[in-house]
Amino acid sequence: MAASEHALAIVGGGPAGLTAGIYAARDRLDTVLLEAKPLTGGQIVFTDVVENYPGFPEPLSGAELMDKMRKQAERFDLQIATAEIGTVRAQGDKYLLAGDKADYLAQAVIVATGTESQKLGVPGEEEFWGAGVSTCATCDGPLYRDKPVAVVGGGDSAVKEAVYLTKFASKVYVIHRRDRLRAEKIIQEVALANEKVEFVWDTVVTEMAGKDGLEALKLKHVKTGAESEVAVDCVFLYVGVRPNTDLVKGLVELDERGLIVTDDDMRTSAPGIFAAGDCRSKKLKQVATAVGEGAVAAYSAQEYITGGPYGGG
Amino acid sequence: MAASEHALAIVGGGPAGLTAGIYAARDRLDTVLLEAKPLTGGQIVFTDVVENYPGFPEPLSGAELMDKMRKQAERFDLQIATAEIGTVRAQGDKYLLAGDKADYLAQAVIVATGTESQKLGVPGEEEFWGAGVSTCATCDGPLYRDKPVAVVGGGDSAVKEAVYLTKFASKVYVIHRRDRLRAEKIIQEVALANEKVEFVWDTVVTEMAGKDGLEALKLKHVKTGAESEVAVDCVFLYVGVRPNTDLVKGLVELDERGLIVTDDDMRTSAPGIFAAGDCRSKKLKQVATAVGEGAVAAYSAQEYITGGPYGGG
Repeated sequence: MAASEHALAIVGGGPAGLTAGIYAARDRLDTVLLEAKPLTGGQIVFTDVVENYPGFPEPLSGAELMDKMRKQAERFDLQIATAEIGTVRAQGDKYLLAGDKADYLAQAVIVATGTESQKLGVPGEEEFWGAGVSTCATCDGPLYRDKPVAVVGGGDSAVKEAVYLTKFASKVYVIHRRDRLRAEKIIQEVALANEKVEFVWDTVVTEMAGKDGLEALKLKHVKTGAESEVAVDCVFLYVGVRPNTDLVKGLVELDERGLIVTDDDMRTSAPGIFAAGDCRSKKLKQVATAVGEGAVAAYSAQEYITGGPYGGG
Repeated sequence: MAASEHALAIVGGGPAGLTAGIYAARDRLDTVLLEAKPLTGGQIVFTDVVENYPGFPEPLSGAELMDKMRKQAERFDLQIATAEIGTVRAQGDKYLLAGDKADYLAQAVIVATGTESQKLGVPGEEEFWGAGVSTCATCDGPLYRDKPVAVVGGGDSAVKEAVYLTKFASKVYVIHRRDRLRAEKIIQEVALANEKVEFVWDTVVTEMAGKDGLEALKLKHVKTGAESEVAVDCVFLYVGVRPNTDLVKGLVELDERGLIVTDDDMRTSAPGIFAAGDCRSKKLKQVATAVGEGAVAAYSAQEYITGGPYGGG
């Protein structure tokens, strides 16, 4: 199978990948954007209300926002292909991207594959995903002023975000399958001292219920088997995140969570491989940060491809 | 004069400052955004066509985009005040921002004051500013496909961007007041070898002329005084940039160009002082990068103010 060849291959069609695509295509760089499924748009498409991406005074859905970014990329004739990339490997001074349907060869690669949040796999979870089930307190917390919410998990993120949510929510239940937290001591202390936070120990969620939106979580005590219910308008899942970085494992440096380490210019440890968006090792995962990183990655990739500190020649 | 006190003060009302304001206000942090003039919106408001800020398939003007960001910030009740801040100085564990009309006291400060491009001060420059006169080849270069353009300047940026512009323009005149370039040797060589680039030595622009848009530059030879004219659709000025960072001089580390040095989390060398946008030492100056930096700066400021790795408490 002959590989189709391009100057730049971008893997991932979320905000970071599409922004890199907009910049590269507008710069007349021969670029292909590869996404695993048609029209994915990344994790943000599962979010019903985006109100903090700058430029939109009225909230819009993640799917609407990504539709706009895609149309913008198409306006600059970005090539978009559906291909799930299994591995990226060096081949001479280029990189071979091995896909399920076709292979691609590129001088430079931008990895913008994002992450996948672990789900609980309980009834109702899919139904309310992005509208009552969230994986981002910074994104969705402010939507639940004076409402009761729940956090599922017991690690640093879960407990830290539970405290953050007390700024908005009337009550924050922290539902944890064990009888103690994994979170750092200092984070625990702050959470335990906050009267809005109520810990629900040794408990798992068995169902997410509601009519128009999420209304309640059905719970089960793991030791006694006792069933109960708690009324909440939103549940925030902090039960783990899987970075989609298997394709570059062994090729670029990853952090202890499997996220790609880059410098300020989005360069990874492998020359010609860049990363942007949620799959990158960083603190804040937002559409606003993803687009900034996508733009920088495209700029750096172009510098790399044209072989100097100038973009043309 | 008693200083008005806030948890966070943001200085600058461009894309970086307004995004930091959107994030901080949405997070219910007591925040004031200070801008030198009412409704400034930063340098981008002088740009007629923005087509690479992700989320807008159809081009819009910089003023329109900033109007949207401002409305969004107001939706979250961000306080915006008109005040030109002269200096920021430590006062106990807070910072005093000395303004022309009032003083402000804040636990944390985000500096998003941008830069000012030097102008030539010739007739026509103001008239065509943002629509025929540009200071950003990455932003506006792709708008001039197969058209003749000019670059004014002889330093690294001028010559590098002239080469970049050959990707789009039919011809790139580099107008320089001296008979040799200040640019690095390697950059010069690439430019001199490019047949689309034509150097116009010992020459200054005396006027920018046109009817509906820029049509020509009037030139004068500095040694002979001979006058001439060159037809171009856009002129890119690379005659120097002045960072608006005097207010924090001596307080935070600046680079050799006077831009603010930060880490990945937008922290400067002074605890509690953060920077975002064009006034920061970085490679790519775009609205897309400014909003990412604004979001990160707000997140980091909030962490700093709440005194730990959690956003609330």
